[in-house]
Amino acid sequence: MAKHFADKLLDAIEGKQTPVVVGLDPVYERMPKQIREIAARSPQASLSERSAAAVEFCQSIIDIVADLVPAVKLQSAYFEMCGPSGLEALYRVADYAHQQGLIVIADVKRGDIGSTAKAYASTYLEEVYIGQGKDEKAVTIDAITVNPYFGTDGVEPFITAARENGAGIFVVVRTSNPSAGEFQDFKDASGRRLFQFVAERANAWANLPECVGESGYSLLGAVVPATYPEDAKLLRAIMPNSIFLVPGYGAQGATADDAAAAFHEDGWGAVVTSARGIIYAWERPEYEHLGEMNWEQAVEVAVRDMRKDIASALARRAGAEE
Amino acid sequence: MAKHFADKLLDAIEGKQTPVVVGLDPVYERMPKQIREIAARSPQASLSERSAAAVEFCQSIIDIVADLVPAVKLQSAYFEMCGPSGLEALYRVADYAHQQGLIVIADVKRGDIGSTAKAYASTYLEEVYIGQGKDEKAVTIDAITVNPYFGTDGVEPFITAARENGAGIFVVVRTSNPSAGEFQDFKDASGRRLFQFVAERANAWANLPECVGESGYSLLGAVVPATYPEDAKLLRAIMPNSIFLVPGYGAQGATADDAAAAFHEDGWGAVVTSARGIIYAWERPEYEHLGEMNWEQAVEVAVRDMRKDIASALARRAGAEE
Repeated sequence: MAKHFADKLLDAIEGKQTPVVVGLDPVYERMPKQIREIAARSPQASLSERSAAAVEFCQSIIDIVADLVPAVKLQSAYFEMCGPSGLEALYRVADYAHQQGLIVIADVKRGDIGSTAKAYASTYLEEVYIGQGKDEKAVTIDAITVNPYFGTDGVEPFITAARENGAGIFVVVRTSNPSAGEFQDFKDASGRRLFQFVAERANAWANLPECVGESGYSLLGAVVPATYPEDAKLLRAIMPNSIFLVPGYGAQGATADDAAAAFHEDGWGAVVTSARGIIYAWERPEYEHLGEMNWEQAVEVAVRDMRKDIASALARRAGAEE
Repeated sequence: MAKHFADKLLDAIEGKQTPVVVGLDPVYERMPKQIREIAARSPQASLSERSAAAVEFCQSIIDIVADLVPAVKLQSAYFEMCGPSGLEALYRVADYAHQQGLIVIADVKRGDIGSTAKAYASTYLEEVYIGQGKDEKAVTIDAITVNPYFGTDGVEPFITAARENGAGIFVVVRTSNPSAGEFQDFKDASGRRLFQFVAERANAWANLPECVGESGYSLLGAVVPATYPEDAKLLRAIMPNSIFLVPGYGAQGATADDAAAAFHEDGWGAVVTSARGIIYAWERPEYEHLGEMNWEQAVEVAVRDMRKDIASALARRAGAEE
């Protein structure tokens, strides 16, 4: 039987000694020139050239971060943007990340009625075969993000598929963007906000039979951003045995202390993602002295700095709670 | 400048004399044997064989329905389920539908933070190139469905892309599934439910500058199911100049009279979709006498019957309102 997703993720966090997850958002125009030159014959790269560049870029980043982080998060939109070959690129990158010992989260934010959700679940949580003939191989993804707007029967097929495949899902409870509150803060008569209610339901799903692993954490986690730390504290209490996937650190403006709010006092229970701040690190003022030629070094320094930043914040939080 | 999406859709409805839209949800196991035999060498078809079958099946359906309906709706999940070649199949089917004079709606239900939403918008509302070399061609999609959970800044990139490309979006306001009410009926202190509030905001988006066409309808429509006709009536009043994309008729249990609730009294303002009830019509008790060999005839009869059924309901509704 496949190992439970939460147990696998927690082991990986322990092994790498950090809850930092690198987001892979490959945007062709922002890739280092060296990568673009390998992949494309002209500046107006075709979609298949862009897909090749995405694979090259992401594999280079995986080589740099494989020993430094437990997992990578692939943002599906940037792969889909490269057309049909982009989806193949996503699976190739997932496969490469697995070879390098990383856990793979695909940020697809799918959600639909039950029958359609079942199709999405089988697409992203079961084996997919890529390549042809002798080169054909099965690729799996460890976990995906799921949109909850359809309610229980839209989420259940993802839970079932996750349970059967040793995979995980992260329900999008609260989002990191400026407009997040527009609908998510919609309040009932008692003052309870929609995202709190979604979290209550998600916590019930997280505790369905066979969902909780040996670690005490469920295969059903939640997206809980660092950009709203007060909300993260509320959610931490509502969903005690769900792992939180925490976006918003860095490029979106949240600090390590903000991100720490999504963790339990023992420093466990969440992973903090950063994409743009890491993979395009050589564009940041603090690393631009390294230059585009040394973009790989900038990525490595940025990951190491983020590891330290998050570790310090978790230590401060543990100190403050004692 | 590209023609406005709503004007284009209304012209097509007038031309075909029906608001019926055929949903293309190609599930390999349910396709007629003839199609499966053309595409796959063994019953355990590979993903690329399944993609080829999806193209063959959908093109055959398009040939049958092209003169009978204004548009087709492609459910992305069933194409994605065929892996990378499935996404190519989706674009090939979209291209073929355009050649046959049909409007193409892709039911992708994407939604994310602004930067990611922009990537999705450019993927599904701008030209995509498929094929290689001499066979390369640009394909466009006319409209997509969008999940509103992220709020304004997650929806804006889709509106901008739609405006620039003569395309449309349908915001998922209310869903057709049994659990729809779980979150969408979350009530504020005044008794207003979440989906009503989402509709109020969506109506404001629908009336942003340059969003309303000559017909008086906006490029921003809404998904409003036939399975909750009382809610459809409320939403019709909240979003007067949005076209409603109405799922739930047929296989999901709603009647033509239920679907009619999403229309204005003049019989305009909505399109009613049916997928499984049409494309797998030969499995339905009323058509199974035709047999799997005559599946194409069953599809045609089912579409003609649905056209009549919806037309009668709209006539009854107009009569009742007078």
